[in-house]
Amino acid sequence: MQFSHSSPVKLVFGPGRLDALATEPLPGTKALLLTSNGTAVERIGALGRVKTMLEARGLPYVHVAAVEPNPLSTTVMAVSKTVREEKCDFIIALGGGSVMDAAKAIGIVATNDGDIWDYVQQGRGGRRPIENAPIPLVAITTTAGTGSEVDGGGVITNPVTREKVGLGGHVNCYPKLAIVDPELMRSVPPRLTAYQGFDALFHAIEGYVTKRPNFLSDMYALESVRHVARGLARAVKDGDDLEAREHMAFANTLSGYVMTCCRLTSQHSMEHALSAFHPELPHGAGLIMLSLAYFGHMIKTGARSERFVELARALGHRDAVRPEDFLRALHELQVACGVADLKMSDWGITREEIPALAENCRSAGALLFEQDPVALTFEDTVAIYEAAYR
Amino acid sequence: MQFSHSSPVKLVFGPGRLDALATEPLPGTKALLLTSNGTAVERIGALGRVKTMLEARGLPYVHVAAVEPNPLSTTVMAVSKTVREEKCDFIIALGGGSVMDAAKAIGIVATNDGDIWDYVQQGRGGRRPIENAPIPLVAITTTAGTGSEVDGGGVITNPVTREKVGLGGHVNCYPKLAIVDPELMRSVPPRLTAYQGFDALFHAIEGYVTKRPNFLSDMYALESVRHVARGLARAVKDGDDLEAREHMAFANTLSGYVMTCCRLTSQHSMEHALSAFHPELPHGAGLIMLSLAYFGHMIKTGARSERFVELARALGHRDAVRPEDFLRALHELQVACGVADLKMSDWGITREEIPALAENCRSAGALLFEQDPVALTFEDTVAIYEAAYR
Ligand SMILES: [Zn+2]
Ligand SMILES: [Zn+2]
Repeated sequence: MQFSHSSPVKLVFGPGRLDALATEPLPGTKALLLTSNGTAVERIGALGRVKTMLEARGLPYVHVAAVEPNPLSTTVMAVSKTVREEKCDFIIALGGGSVMDAAKAIGIVATNDGDIWDYVQQGRGGRRPIENAPIPLVAITTTAGTGSEVDGGGVITNPVTREKVGLGGHVNCYPKLAIVDPELMRSVPPRLTAYQGFDALFHAIEGYVTKRPNFLSDMYALESVRHVARGLARAVKDGDDLEAREHMAFANTLSGYVMTCCRLTSQHSMEHALSAFHPELPHGAGLIMLSLAYFGHMIKTGARSERFVELARALGHRDAVRPEDFLRALHELQVACGVADLKMSDWGITREEIPALAENCRSAGALLFEQDPVALTFEDTVAIYEAAYR
Repeated sequence: MQFSHSSPVKLVFGPGRLDALATEPLPGTKALLLTSNGTAVERIGALGRVKTMLEARGLPYVHVAAVEPNPLSTTVMAVSKTVREEKCDFIIALGGGSVMDAAKAIGIVATNDGDIWDYVQQGRGGRRPIENAPIPLVAITTTAGTGSEVDGGGVITNPVTREKVGLGGHVNCYPKLAIVDPELMRSVPPRLTAYQGFDALFHAIEGYVTKRPNFLSDMYALESVRHVARGLARAVKDGDDLEAREHMAFANTLSGYVMTCCRLTSQHSMEHALSAFHPELPHGAGLIMLSLAYFGHMIKTGARSERFVELARALGHRDAVRPEDFLRALHELQVACGVADLKMSDWGITREEIPALAENCRSAGALLFEQDPVALTFEDTVAIYEAAYR
């Protein structure tokens, strides 16, 4: 088994640690302070605290509140224009996965010419290499979902080509500093807590059943699943359960590490097609709706049987012996989190779209299909969408 | 729970990966190639391969084969003189923990005046801060023991004061690049494999029962124990069992990470006193002889009961329910590795020395006594040595 790993991110973890922004070395002299186009970070007081700390340091910044839930390439381009005009030399991303992902993309086009889609390496992307180092990034996560604060990739949607794909790859796409403060996550509502928590869980699970795992990705993945098992249902039931939030914040960070040392599987490509077609569909909800059909198919092929048993154990079923026990454990967790009854039709997804979805995900998200332990055919892909459809 | 973590080391892992030295970026232009005063690295061909790769890169180096098993401060000073005279601007440490530890100390005094003991922060050390960045380090480990290739500390013995203590702490004490190639470990003889493997195991165990663990150190520690359980007895029985060597190489690296995010307990200070008094005693053998008495005492105080149960499970006793099951699991592993019958008297240690040993370890190694979950008195320390003595 061969692998390499380097994680250039300094991780600062713990309740109240947002305050580290007052003292930690920062990688620039003028910040783009990037937040979502919503009001959450203001409402929880995080935005005000960040501004106060930057002002106390005498560090100039430009605040842009622009990022939508599934960040668009057009937004990336618009904000990168501001970065250039205002001569910001680093980014502070304060928000969830979409804000951090957009920040990585903005960092790329802040120092590299052309459109962000030129630097996408799959689908209709231009496959240009990132020639100049992106401007550095400080990531402060306010959700427990994508683990984007410790990895070097981001997911961006192109509204023209209707593609939703990952990009990144330059060492500067990794944040220099990641602040993971579970207190900031207390006010995330139950439904979103569940969506984001399952996203973290699926990063771990896919990383664990992927074609080429290694000792390191296995460690991160199983430990992430264990923390999800300890925290997710509790955090959904009581958002102020800080211990549960700590487990989920850490699970999320571990799932981010998973993505730095192995690849996810095609479930993520299949979800990206869903939310590229229906941008209002939360990524985590899409995954939840696909998951039992997706992993059920994988288990039926006989792939990764022992690993699914281990996953069931990590989810708390210490007595698990068959891969199907994993499906049972996953379903139980979905019930406990109140997300077992999600329906694709509630988001306007139609059965008629399925062939187009299968086409889209196998093209835009081809890279992840190569990571499946048993390759999916076009028909398999359609069949999984069909089985998941309600 | 609050913690920070950054691991500036690029880890390259896997059989055959010594070859990465041919292509990985190196942190300097002229290397001190540091090896032990023995012939092991020459015998296994690693030294020749390293030299060939450096020559192919056109990278000048000075080879110094100088480091003894428990590296002495006098050796550190002598080699640092060579580094200055030869104007080496980085070090390649090829060997076991002692070589890597010595390299870290040499790196410090290569750029900072005075004696290395001036920069020791405990015992009779001078407690001077490291003002100038040590010259950078590439670590190629040929043993699975100290995890020194991924941490920022080293252990050095002062032959005058008879102290054996840790030093380090500057970010440049962390290697820039760590190559962990299990193939290099195939020829480590069974006895040494056991000593080094138990050292890695005790780093993990102490890190897991320490006073202030955190999610991250817990993950590294338990996963290290699991890999030890899978690999150690096999690697002792058959050194060419490459899969077993892989598990031990990875366990070793994880135990190194444990030491980057939490502190060990006083068992290590108690061992350092033993081998400071008897430099021919291998560190791992000293730990093995102390361990059942040491952890037996901790368990009798009622400290960390649940964690000892988890450790027993990680060691493969999935049915463990009582902390004493850990002692049983530990003893079984010592039997399986042929090291259950080690006697202190075989290394010339006398019962009469015990008070002096207790005095020494509580002074030179005071920092680790502060990490114990229940503080040991002088009498406790003596009692543990007495119980361990044979
Ligand atoms: Zn995801
Ligand atoms: Zn040790």
